[in-house]
Amino acid sequence: MTAHSGRHFLQIPGPTNVPDRVLHAIAQSTIDHRGPDFAELTLDLLQRVKPVFGTSGPVVIYPSSGTGAWEAALVNTLSPGDRVLAFETGHFASLWRDMAERLGLVVDFVPGDWRRGADPAAVAERLAADTEHSIAAVMVVHNETSTGVTSRIPEIRAAIDGAAHPALLLVDTISSLGSIDYRHEEWGVDVTISCSQKGLMLPPGLGFNAISEKALAAAQKARLPKAYWDWAPILEANARGFYPYTPSTNLLYGLREALLLLEEEGLPNVFARHNRHAEATRAAVRGWGLEILCADEREHSSVLTAVLLDEGHDADKVRQIILDRFDMSLGAGLSKLAGRVFRIGHLGDFNDLTLAGTLAGVQMGLELAGVSVDPAGLQAALEVLRAE
Amino acid sequence: MTAHSGRHFLQIPGPTNVPDRVLHAIAQSTIDHRGPDFAELTLDLLQRVKPVFGTSGPVVIYPSSGTGAWEAALVNTLSPGDRVLAFETGHFASLWRDMAERLGLVVDFVPGDWRRGADPAAVAERLAADTEHSIAAVMVVHNETSTGVTSRIPEIRAAIDGAAHPALLLVDTISSLGSIDYRHEEWGVDVTISCSQKGLMLPPGLGFNAISEKALAAAQKARLPKAYWDWAPILEANARGFYPYTPSTNLLYGLREALLLLEEEGLPNVFARHNRHAEATRAAVRGWGLEILCADEREHSSVLTAVLLDEGHDADKVRQIILDRFDMSLGAGLSKLAGRVFRIGHLGDFNDLTLAGTLAGVQMGLELAGVSVDPAGLQAALEVLRAE
Amino acid sequence: MTAHSGRHFLQIPGPTNVPDRVLHAIAQSTIDHRGPDFAELTLDLLQRVKPVFGTSGPVVIYPSSGTGAWEAALVNTLSPGDRVLAFETGHFASLWRDMAERLGLVVDFVPGDWRRGADPAAVAERLAADTEHSIAAVMVVHNETSTGVTSRIPEIRAAIDGAAHPALLLVDTISSLGSIDYRHEEWGVDVTISCSQKGLMLPPGLGFNAISEKALAAAQKARLPKAYWDWAPILEANARGFYPYTPSTNLLYGLREALLLLEEEGLPNVFARHNRHAEATRAAVRGWGLEILCADEREHSSVLTAVLLDEGHDADKVRQIILDRFDMSLGAGLSKLAGRVFRIGHLGDFNDLTLAGTLAGVQMGLELAGVSVDPAGLQAALEVLRAE
Amino acid sequence: MTAHSGRHFLQIPGPTNVPDRVLHAIAQSTIDHRGPDFAELTLDLLQRVKPVFGTSGPVVIYPSSGTGAWEAALVNTLSPGDRVLAFETGHFASLWRDMAERLGLVVDFVPGDWRRGADPAAVAERLAADTEHSIAAVMVVHNETSTGVTSRIPEIRAAIDGAAHPALLLVDTISSLGSIDYRHEEWGVDVTISCSQKGLMLPPGLGFNAISEKALAAAQKARLPKAYWDWAPILEANARGFYPYTPSTNLLYGLREALLLLEEEGLPNVFARHNRHAEATRAAVRGWGLEILCADEREHSSVLTAVLLDEGHDADKVRQIILDRFDMSLGAGLSKLAGRVFRIGHLGDFNDLTLAGTLAGVQMGLELAGVSVDPAGLQAALEVLRAE
Repeated sequence: MTAHSGRHFLQIPGPTNVPDRVLHAIAQSTIDHRGPDFAELTLDLLQRVKPVFGTSGPVVIYPSSGTGAWEAALVNTLSPGDRVLAFETGHFASLWRDMAERLGLVVDFVPGDWRRGADPAAVAERLAADTEHSIAAVMVVHNETSTGVTSRIPEIRAAIDGAAHPALLLVDTISSLGSIDYRHEEWGVDVTISCSQKGLMLPPGLGFNAISEKALAAAQKARLPKAYWDWAPILEANARGFYPYTPSTNLLYGLREALLLLEEEGLPNVFARHNRHAEATRAAVRGWGLEILCADEREHSSVLTAVLLDEGHDADKVRQIILDRFDMSLGAGLSKLAGRVFRIGHLGDFNDLTLAGTLAGVQMGLELAGVSVDPAGLQAALEVLRAE
Repeated sequence: MTAHSGRHFLQIPGPTNVPDRVLHAIAQSTIDHRGPDFAELTLDLLQRVKPVFGTSGPVVIYPSSGTGAWEAALVNTLSPGDRVLAFETGHFASLWRDMAERLGLVVDFVPGDWRRGADPAAVAERLAADTEHSIAAVMVVHNETSTGVTSRIPEIRAAIDGAAHPALLLVDTISSLGSIDYRHEEWGVDVTISCSQKGLMLPPGLGFNAISEKALAAAQKARLPKAYWDWAPILEANARGFYPYTPSTNLLYGLREALLLLEEEGLPNVFARHNRHAEATRAAVRGWGLEILCADEREHSSVLTAVLLDEGHDADKVRQIILDRFDMSLGAGLSKLAGRVFRIGHLGDFNDLTLAGTLAGVQMGLELAGVSVDPAGLQAALEVLRAE
Repeated sequence: MTAHSGRHFLQIPGPTNVPDRVLHAIAQSTIDHRGPDFAELTLDLLQRVKPVFGTSGPVVIYPSSGTGAWEAALVNTLSPGDRVLAFETGHFASLWRDMAERLGLVVDFVPGDWRRGADPAAVAERLAADTEHSIAAVMVVHNETSTGVTSRIPEIRAAIDGAAHPALLLVDTISSLGSIDYRHEEWGVDVTISCSQKGLMLPPGLGFNAISEKALAAAQKARLPKAYWDWAPILEANARGFYPYTPSTNLLYGLREALLLLEEEGLPNVFARHNRHAEATRAAVRGWGLEILCADEREHSSVLTAVLLDEGHDADKVRQIILDRFDMSLGAGLSKLAGRVFRIGHLGDFNDLTLAGTLAGVQMGLELAGVSVDPAGLQAALEVLRAE
Repeated sequence: MTAHSGRHFLQIPGPTNVPDRVLHAIAQSTIDHRGPDFAELTLDLLQRVKPVFGTSGPVVIYPSSGTGAWEAALVNTLSPGDRVLAFETGHFASLWRDMAERLGLVVDFVPGDWRRGADPAAVAERLAADTEHSIAAVMVVHNETSTGVTSRIPEIRAAIDGAAHPALLLVDTISSLGSIDYRHEEWGVDVTISCSQKGLMLPPGLGFNAISEKALAAAQKARLPKAYWDWAPILEANARGFYPYTPSTNLLYGLREALLLLEEEGLPNVFARHNRHAEATRAAVRGWGLEILCADEREHSSVLTAVLLDEGHDADKVRQIILDRFDMSLGAGLSKLAGRVFRIGHLGDFNDLTLAGTLAGVQMGLELAGVSVDPAGLQAALEVLRAE
């Protein structure tokens, strides 16, 4: 790797900056995954992780990326040929749709402009029209990492309930969990999908499924083939603190430490901090005179801000300059947003001065790339940060 | 975790003791998985890992356990209803069989007594009988971790070739890779399955598939549903140093360091060390007057030794005493061997004096459990270690 | 310790932020300090450290703070009752004077206003007046950490030479070494004193003496009592790669890594980086409309900037607000500067965006403390950083 | 450093094997040594360290080796020309004598054969003869690291008291503290000297002085020159949780963790463990038919065992073979014992199986070096370890 002085600014919307305490935890010696110390660790973890999901039910943890947790949610609850309702909120929602199709599901994909969340009205309409209840599940990405738009899950839940439709609600919280207020149980979510490398402040390598009772019941009948992802043997082994295969011991050490960090700060404080940093970031973007990709005030993401550049500018060039000159990584525009958008991650283990440095770097990078920006942008962000 | 003075003796047959250099590597800051430093890391790794498999072809690395790599090998090469030939060499071979059936394959499972490897003669016979070539793959566990028996892959290859049968050869090297001589290419293996936490001296969390050209061709036609495990998008992204999802960055750091360690020692020296430690361990077991589970001299494992106790003794009690009194974890007898067998792991980052301490602990534990052993056992092991 | 999200901003003028690579190096297992691996480490280190001092002569490394290295320089070269010439450049120069007196030396202490470096004209005058050559040594603090003023060593050397005076030149580079251009040999320094926790980017715990041939000769006659600090047994043992006592093995591991980091960046680049960051910081301070303590343009420090507040303001209150609100540590005003001054450290493992965050935090803190500042200050700094 | 598989056996009598928890603690980020978090750490540490010394009085911690702590004890309590009584118990007692003389003290050095501790009868006799009370201090090495002999401090105290002599009692516990029962206060010790890298399980770099009220009073009158080592400014700053210079922050982090480890195991258990391991080691040496250097049954050290070889054998050759073949470091015979003796360290973070491995390595090394040993030695040690 290239040598640099000082610490790299990892301001992509995940993987996020891993706290030293978590890195140290991960660097502990691996232990016997069938011994009593491991059982104690697992039993503690499986309880401690629940409040982060807002659930009192089981959470299954996989050695996998978040993509794997997507697959787990589908293969455990659905059968070949099942219809599912999904929303084109951005790149990741599209990838999840592709996965569903590859696994043999039929996806009703509600089109979108990548600037808004899943539309509760569309949910209501589609489900109302599905009088035969052929739609087995509604798939929603809570925070679309490619756009910085956060879908309104409670309103989607209300739409499903309004239609008195039995479809399962599957929600991807990959980039929101542990950063944006989320309530699996209260919001009636059936499977919440997440992973380790965003708000949980871990390196990548763990996938999560929080599971409702309704989803557990659905799993009894689901016929998509499954082995690795099958909840049943995991839940059975978890009851005694074990796994049916060798789990990611060292990442689980890290998870325990990360959960302790979240407990120490307090989840409401964590959420407030993310909201505040997002507000400061938006103040900067507006102050610079640039456009935020998210088009609905109710749906601004608290974990990342996607900035849309005018046609004449290349967002990837801006990112390259910022990486070369200021050793900061920003998120690229993905697929149809490529070159038009860059994404500023402001989630995870993060504080005011790191955000100030981040925004200063973005401002300087834009200037160097020839994008006309008003330096009042940074100052506007500082005013948000300075306010109590 | 319980406090103990000194270092725990982790002498299960994996996860193995992770060297400090690897733990430190894993504790480095997570980086942008879409940036140039990551691409450089990946491109280097994907080359550097090949000699460990004995291949010049591609190696796919998953964020998963070894179980996941089993599934990947099957879903990428086979179609629903395909017949596969497998061998009851022990607990893990049985689990792999179960997985194959759950995924919709039809398994011809050659029975075994859990004291021998896969029988090349049985391979020859079964394939010769399969004149219609309905068997799509032969599945063999190279080193059966539950028994300490190493199947003779070159002879199995020869049996397949002798039958002029087109079946793919899928080999699980989960507990042998990086410890026992293995040659994916020379032995004509089509998919080699492995994972991180044994001979590669990493924590658990990475699964591997080394893939032959024949397997790549088979993958074009394979119709088992797949998304997460699909080789195609991974190989495509790997060409540029990336992954189609967020990879396990920090475990990949560790993998690089582990590969450097193997290069520094030299693979032939690594294999010779394991052979020597296994020989010393067998000398101890025989010296104690106990029985080694492996029944065929040609198939003794170099990475673990399973010790079979007489009916009157409880192997789990022996293990418990050793854990309580000497802070050492040994492997349990699994399923049909439960209580009859304990397993001594002697693989990974390991040396003569740690083996001496291990065997001393086993000897004392046996004595404390009331198993009559001749203390000449330990001395016999030391004579092996002392010899040049 | 208090829990905080994100990384603490340690912007005191030392200890500085220790790079992860150095922390990992320190966390390696301790080895036999009388074995061959340790000898190899030491012999390498003792060569590799020389260019940082700008010397081809010996460098002695103590397990000590920088204060210990001060004492070592005195007791190895001087005798009870010897006269030394020193300069009141600030708090640390005053402490060193006190130490000299406590050890039985007679100090001619040239008074100063804590805003300027040691005056070459005063050196010339004092030495010219000392026709009997009763002054045995001239003691100068290169970079006065309490004031942010860097004395002009080459001009002091010229003054000594101009007076044709045989006094030794002892220079404290505690906060300059590895950050500000320094040349032990070229500038004719006899003992250069330094320590680990500033430009060398290590935790505290190592003291250094770089020694000229003239100082070695003086050591033959020096009669201050000494044992721990005695150069002779250390130099003798160092020749074989050892120490006469147990050295700080793990900090020496860190030193090797830190020296590698300096080599990778290149010392001229390191110095240029510090100059640039200091210039940006001064641009901010001036832009805010505040006063820099250093009164001589030729003597601005590249490693820290001391900011002088008007009488009505309490610098410690500013620091407290910044610590509480923004999790950043700044240096306090020491002794006669207490409450009047705060010090911004910008040295060691540091980069543009961390400086931007630092200055943003200072600006916000000043505002919150009711100090009237022009926010153009931060913008002025960014213009320096943005320029090539 | 040379690459080896497995963990190095560091069985010198210090530095000892540093537990991972301590290494991780040391690798935490350095903080402001003048901030509130540091004060909290120091105040906690300074209390928590007292029980290890068996004192309720102050303990001063230096960034230094143990040698520095020797010097501190002398310069704080004594004046030029003072007489001190010391005992030739081995290499380190001789070095401490040399230091005392270099600092201007007059040493009455009671000769010894390096196989026994300081003789209480000699103390009684010398002090009784000193009717003018010209002897200012008695200097005793509690555990002589070069010989494996532990002096009987309570009997020495009784001898001083019996002579009604006002001399201070200065005791070096460098290799005994935290491993062998020691009681600064109960035994009436005036200054207890120690360091970090033995029973405290830290890397080298910290020196300690535990100070009695009598020693504090003596310090008021002591006239040896001192600055770095002066207790007064340290005690003054310590009262608020600070140091008069920059302390070894990261080693202090490690000290906290090491003290927690000792608390978790319980000091009586720690002492019993060391006694048991020493007994096992002596059983091995005797079983081999070799001679233990310590000649008095009452004075066997619990932290190391020095083995005396017959004239025809070279102990350094044995050590070299063991290092080369088994990657284990043992202690050399020092000065007059060079080549005759090797020393087995069995202290610090250590357990039964590591001791078994250690003794197995010694046995094999002796055999390879042509020293005739009875292999029953190892077995005798195991019998001690196996017994409850």
